[in-house]
Amino acid sequence: MPAYVMCVRLRESELKTNRENIDSLRDRNVILTELCRWSLRLACCRRPLVQSVKCVQPEPSSSGSSGSSGSSSTPIGLLSEDNRSRHSRSHSTALRVMHIQPGIRVPFVLNVNTERYRQLWVLEVYLCGNSAEAKRAVAEMSTKLGLTVLDKGSLSAAGELEDFPLQLFPEWRLPLRVAVSLTAFFFFYLVIRDVVYGYVEQDKDISYRIMVSLANKVFPIVSLIMLALCYLPGGIAAFLQLYRGTKYRRFPDWLDRWMLCRKQMGLIALGLAFLHVIHTFMTPTRYSVRHKLITLVVDEMENNKTTPFYFDNTEAWGQDSFYALGILGFFLYVLLGLTSLPSVGGSLSWREFNFIQSKLGHLTLFICTAHGYIYGWNKFLRPSTYKWYTPPGYMLCLIVPSVVLVLKALVLLPCVDRTLTRIRQGWERNQPTEEIGKVTNL
Amino acid sequence: MPAYVMCVRLRESELKTNRENIDSLRDRNVILTELCRWSLRLACCRRPLVQSVKCVQPEPSSSGSSGSSGSSSTPIGLLSEDNRSRHSRSHSTALRVMHIQPGIRVPFVLNVNTERYRQLWVLEVYLCGNSAEAKRAVAEMSTKLGLTVLDKGSLSAAGELEDFPLQLFPEWRLPLRVAVSLTAFFFFYLVIRDVVYGYVEQDKDISYRIMVSLANKVFPIVSLIMLALCYLPGGIAAFLQLYRGTKYRRFPDWLDRWMLCRKQMGLIALGLAFLHVIHTFMTPTRYSVRHKLITLVVDEMENNKTTPFYFDNTEAWGQDSFYALGILGFFLYVLLGLTSLPSVGGSLSWREFNFIQSKLGHLTLFICTAHGYIYGWNKFLRPSTYKWYTPPGYMLCLIVPSVVLVLKALVLLPCVDRTLTRIRQGWERNQPTEEIGKVTNL
Amino acid sequence: MPAYVMCVRLRESELKTNRENIDSLRDRNVILTELCRWSLRLACCRRPLVQSVKCVQPEPSSSGSSGSSGSSSTPIGLLSEDNRSRHSRSHSTALRVMHIQPGIRVPFVLNVNTERYRQLWVLEVYLCGNSAEAKRAVAEMSTKLGLTVLDKGSLSAAGELEDFPLQLFPEWRLPLRVAVSLTAFFFFYLVIRDVVYGYVEQDKDISYRIMVSLANKVFPIVSLIMLALCYLPGGIAAFLQLYRGTKYRRFPDWLDRWMLCRKQMGLIALGLAFLHVIHTFMTPTRYSVRHKLITLVVDEMENNKTTPFYFDNTEAWGQDSFYALGILGFFLYVLLGLTSLPSVGGSLSWREFNFIQSKLGHLTLFICTAHGYIYGWNKFLRPSTYKWYTPPGYMLCLIVPSVVLVLKALVLLPCVDRTLTRIRQGWERNQPTEEIGKVTNL
Repeated sequence: MPAYVMCVRLRESELKTNRENIDSLRDRNVILTELCRWSLRLACCRRPLVQSVKCVQPEPSSSGSSGSSGSSSTPIGLLSEDNRSRHSRSHSTALRVMHIQPGIRVPFVLNVNTERYRQLWVLEVYLCGNSAEAKRAVAEMSTKLGLTVLDKGSLSAAGELEDFPLQLFPEWRLPLRVAVSLTAFFFFYLVIRDVVYGYVEQDKDISYRIMVSLANKVFPIVSLIMLALCYLPGGIAAFLQLYRGTKYRRFPDWLDRWMLCRKQMGLIALGLAFLHVIHTFMTPTRYSVRHKLITLVVDEMENNKTTPFYFDNTEAWGQDSFYALGILGFFLYVLLGLTSLPSVGGSLSWREFNFIQSKLGHLTLFICTAHGYIYGWNKFLRPSTYKWYTPPGYMLCLIVPSVVLVLKALVLLPCVDRTLTRIRQGWERNQPTEEIGKVTNL
Repeated sequence: MPAYVMCVRLRESELKTNRENIDSLRDRNVILTELCRWSLRLACCRRPLVQSVKCVQPEPSSSGSSGSSGSSSTPIGLLSEDNRSRHSRSHSTALRVMHIQPGIRVPFVLNVNTERYRQLWVLEVYLCGNSAEAKRAVAEMSTKLGLTVLDKGSLSAAGELEDFPLQLFPEWRLPLRVAVSLTAFFFFYLVIRDVVYGYVEQDKDISYRIMVSLANKVFPIVSLIMLALCYLPGGIAAFLQLYRGTKYRRFPDWLDRWMLCRKQMGLIALGLAFLHVIHTFMTPTRYSVRHKLITLVVDEMENNKTTPFYFDNTEAWGQDSFYALGILGFFLYVLLGLTSLPSVGGSLSWREFNFIQSKLGHLTLFICTAHGYIYGWNKFLRPSTYKWYTPPGYMLCLIVPSVVLVLKALVLLPCVDRTLTRIRQGWERNQPTEEIGKVTNL
Repeated sequence: MPAYVMCVRLRESELKTNRENIDSLRDRNVILTELCRWSLRLACCRRPLVQSVKCVQPEPSSSGSSGSSGSSSTPIGLLSEDNRSRHSRSHSTALRVMHIQPGIRVPFVLNVNTERYRQLWVLEVYLCGNSAEAKRAVAEMSTKLGLTVLDKGSLSAAGELEDFPLQLFPEWRLPLRVAVSLTAFFFFYLVIRDVVYGYVEQDKDISYRIMVSLANKVFPIVSLIMLALCYLPGGIAAFLQLYRGTKYRRFPDWLDRWMLCRKQMGLIALGLAFLHVIHTFMTPTRYSVRHKLITLVVDEMENNKTTPFYFDNTEAWGQDSFYALGILGFFLYVLLGLTSLPSVGGSLSWREFNFIQSKLGHLTLFICTAHGYIYGWNKFLRPSTYKWYTPPGYMLCLIVPSVVLVLKALVLLPCVDRTLTRIRQGWERNQPTEEIGKVTNL
């Protein structure tokens, strides 16, 4: 077996527990002294270590038995540790090395993320390489040292493999931008409608509302819109397929990108719903609310003395069902969030996953929308609702969800559904030619 | 190396990132043109694609080096993609193909769930096959294409492997049925006791209570019963083992099935407890509650003028400890739920898992039961509690938990515990014969 | 291929589903009758089974093709099932067996945790062994039987591998001790300051507060301190590195141990914060609170008749921002907790993980500390705050967080930050010699 040097650094403690393992590595001439000295390094570094390339002459006997390319050039084991700056990564180190010394053979690239190791107690090692021989040997060694090896295919994958630890939430950018801009818009819109209006027209200072009351209006609004935006592309895609009469054509890029960030949108929506719920629970303990309550009682006492005073039954019904819908909606929301956990979602079969994300998802959207409509109730009749001729926030936030639900309802119509199902099972209005071609050359 | 065609379809974007990987596939004569054309398909389909079987002549040189069966028949790579209806799956496709063309060799079955891929960014590929050669080659290829291969053993596993994506929560059925039926029963029971009773006897309309108040009575009741049902089979099993004097005999099927769905029962119980908690938090903001409070104050004002009026210390103690128990119980509930997450539970050692699920579980049950008892307190003395001679809901819900706790207490008795431990360590009241037989032939 | 006996026990149902798999095992002479009989055992045992060692003569033909050691001694497949008591595990069984019969060859150790299997539907099998031949064969067999094999390297790992299921939260001990002692201290401290003080000085019995009010003071205090303790070692380490001028020296052991239990500390802090939040939500429904409210109203009525009576705007602002900060803090708290889930944290790249745990973590700490300061507000001016000349709890709990935040602020100073970054990128104030040595021999 040829000599592969794996530059794995371990902490002293690790070394203690893995002593025998490491001893059993001797026959693979890993220089243990090096290993121990480096181990000290890792012990006291907070970030991944510096890149290091080591090379060792293979024994003449082994060079024959090594991987596909029988060249007797020097094998180089690469341990990339990704502390390069974002800007200095035009090429992967592996490819750069091969470029510098064309004759050389790089059997494997090990990507050790030492930071994660310190904090999550997992040392995942991404391994890629061309010579299966080398990979097998290194994987074995890593296993013995207690590292988990994830094979990432050939050396050509070295680039992304080495860049992986440098990326920062690439797929969260778009959803976050949408969420932030929506929040900002509604926040200022409501500040103007409530606080400024109250100050200008009725000349009273209710600026304290900004902290909690307004937040508790903005969060649910944005949350509901974000949730609707999760399910809007699905509807658009369905009608696009109906219009084209085939599923074998790509969607426009914007739709594709949108679809790929539905999960993140949903999670952000869940987070906002969570905030909305907490705000609601805090409400009764707030000073202003208690003050209003007391004022109410005192007025009650002075104006009408008829106790027990009037109990509005419809009011009770309306508010309670408003709450019930909200609670149920939030419950389903959380359920959706849980199934989007990698470990939970990964254990679901496709049908289960589809059931939850599509059926339960639309049900959640429906319930939350109903929650919003009941909140509005008959306010939209009163002229006092339209301060400065602007519609209240909850009206604006109900537009998108309603559209999504209408689209979904249309898709569920038997006639539409039948066609769509057939299309999605591969039927096309006009059979493409290469299909036939493929069939014949069988 | 023989020619295995893997019908993996990838999205354009994937192709871009994996370009070099795919180039490096050339020497395994995967027809790249095909691959790219199909990739367009996957890009615009919402559901797994149609089944497809491709076959390629192996090179004469390779047929010898291929797996166990040295037959020179045509190898067929199967990519099953599970969009068959639930009804048309009498046989696995792999076996069907082998049945159609008996001479043929099916080296592997790849099960690609493309839908999951689109949404969870994992493309898990279930691989099973008879020829190790083929499996190794395909696994390598898949890795290069960025798929994660899960080896599922021999081709005989193709059946379940292809059916997996079609199953819909098989192990959740029983617990859900129990939960739904219990909820329905208690709901109607309480509707009759509260609303109907109030309407008939006292002739007042409190139907608004159905939405929130009743829900907040039904959920905790069902939740507590479900939690108790999680731990009842354990107790039954213990006594069954004590009675039989051995652990080496199967439990009756009903008990076995019951035991296998304890996890789901617990999770449903947690869900209901969660709903109960949210309902409780919403209470003070409800119209009816505020109305009652105001009425109380107004009455207070008119009847006795002595302020500060009487503060009932025992009342405060009782209610606070009632709340404290509820909070602690819910906290442990959530803890139990967290450890039942695959990723969390999977990282626990057996002893930790046993500690949490058994010890913490029974503690939770105990606390929640105490929560229920304090709620009842001395109400059971008043005749007014038994409307129409029916016991209130909380009494009914305390039966099962009490039984479970009594069983657990019995098992914890030193004498019983000792015997049980010995039995569970393999001791039997009457040693079976094959044991001795096994010992001798060592 | 030699004969490896794998003592895997399966449940009847498993056998039914895996029938063909097991049939396909025949050619590896696993004694199926044994397998079936044992399966009955597993079906009715609640705990891992007894240890069992079986041995089978290898066929002469295979002994040559078997792993590295070409000895024709008897191969023994070990299935350790960890029901040994904690005290009787001086050696691993594998090593013990090898010690008893020195000539013998133990090709593999299978560690089946049957309990987990019953409840989480995963049968993880830890496999370790010296002969790659044996391991491959066993791994294949296990896969066919539906077990997931985790290769744990050479036989020398058998010890820890067999002990794993016996350990009980080793890394949670220290954090839990800290949490419990802090909770106990603050509980008694507050009991004395509130209840005892009230009883002795003002001679009124407010003991009922112990249940909820005090808990709701103790939990946030301890939670905040624990959170601060998560980020304190980071600061200490930074200054230690600055002082030493190199990152290539180990930290003292106490700091190392502290750093390794940061995750657990954070999770405990989250748990306490969760309890604090629930307690807060329960507040308005409490008897004592409602009583106080009513008293307030009644007083209001009798003393000043001017309605609407005075609305304190700063009070509203202060309290609302206090709540807003608390809510935001808890939200970030939960976010941190979620990313520490193995499945979530495992899917993060290093940069993302670092961003969340370091940046978001310090932000959370800052917000929660601000929450505490606003709670205190100007109370510290009133002499009535210092009952019996003792500072209130919230003052004590603000010390550690403030220190941590100051440290962090110092580290963020440009001059300090620059030096630290250079040090962490490997720069040292005095270059060690072996570095040069390493460079030259390249």
